[in-house]
Amino acid sequence: MQEYTPSYQRLIDELNKLPGIGPKSAEKLASYIISLDDSSFNDFIETITQAKAKIKKCSICYNLTEEETCDICRNLERDSSILCVVEEVKDLIAIEKTGVYSGIYHVLHGVLKPIENINAENIKILELIQRIKKGTFKELILATNLTYDGELTAMYIYREVSDPGIRITRLASGLPVGSDIEFADQITLRNAFKGRGIVRIMENKA
Amino acid sequence: MQEYTPSYQRLIDELNKLPGIGPKSAEKLASYIISLDDSSFNDFIETITQAKAKIKKCSICYNLTEEETCDICRNLERDSSILCVVEEVKDLIAIEKTGVYSGIYHVLHGVLKPIENINAENIKILELIQRIKKGTFKELILATNLTYDGELTAMYIYREVSDPGIRITRLASGLPVGSDIEFADQITLRNAFKGRGIVRIMENKA
Repeated sequence: MQEYTPSYQRLIDELNKLPGIGPKSAEKLASYIISLDDSSFNDFIETITQAKAKIKKCSICYNLTEEETCDICRNLERDSSILCVVEEVKDLIAIEKTGVYSGIYHVLHGVLKPIENINAENIKILELIQRIKKGTFKELILATNLTYDGELTAMYIYREVSDPGIRITRLASGLPVGSDIEFADQITLRNAFKGRGIVRIMENKA
Repeated sequence: MQEYTPSYQRLIDELNKLPGIGPKSAEKLASYIISLDDSSFNDFIETITQAKAKIKKCSICYNLTEEETCDICRNLERDSSILCVVEEVKDLIAIEKTGVYSGIYHVLHGVLKPIENINAENIKILELIQRIKKGTFKELILATNLTYDGELTAMYIYREVSDPGIRITRLASGLPVGSDIEFADQITLRNAFKGRGIVRIMENKA
């Protein structure tokens, strides 16, 4: 039976390790990469190696940066008394896009997953506790995902931060804008009920 | 607004060019690649560059190979009077896995897509016509996909091969094994009717 050549199979196996890439996608990617012309291929490799070489984690908040500290930590206009804890850099980017937040961040680079043996020492959580103890934060926003692991991680941080001077908050849970109540899951609907607020005219922000 | 660093954004954009990788998957892949430790990262780059350097197209059938010609073309036990034309190497691999075919192949590396400006000169179709004219094939199996582009490509080849001595065939179209008639699409069901055969005891091939 004809099989892929050894180098090609190794390439497929390597691509198959990437997150979200199954065996079929790996075959497609391998075929695409092999068929790139030399110049496009060199650009491809160059972009990956350049990014890997240049990008570091901010020494304060672990956001990605090409300097010692990130743009947000260096920005003196940000409110450094509010700290928002997120799982991943993409969460930070999503929050920044809303324009609703002007404080600073701490990126955990993961969540606690005891079942998969991902514990406090595997993510930037001990660094967070240290940072809170050394700092003078007024508010700590635990913006981990509303998943089992995200809730667990938020709970862990909540317990470790014993300072009563810090207000610890979590993002509101409720119905997404544009959603139908009938299709909401029970937990979301329960959260939406518990967190209900007085009716007011919606602010028309630009 | 905080955005990704320039190198990181370039990495995301580059990964976004890969087939089947949207902006969200590209972010996930970029984050994974950046967080690889140095040794895993070097293995990753090494595997890709090695594969790119070693893998060539067979000079006869354009299957992938690390030699001048591929295993199938070099195998004297294969029936070189039957030529099966496929779009991609992965189709060849799928056919080989069935064990039903012992002839040789021609890999087009694409299909004709006039709308996207993919014409005869962009795939290995002129090479196929040349190969048929020079050869002594008894049968030509047009195993392009049963899609619009696949059918168009098969039709193009059929018209170009004017030799009445060659039997030109196409894979049977019908209901997939295990499928429900009620859920079959109309064209497949029509094909299944048109191609219906006399009932016989199923052969139990090992």
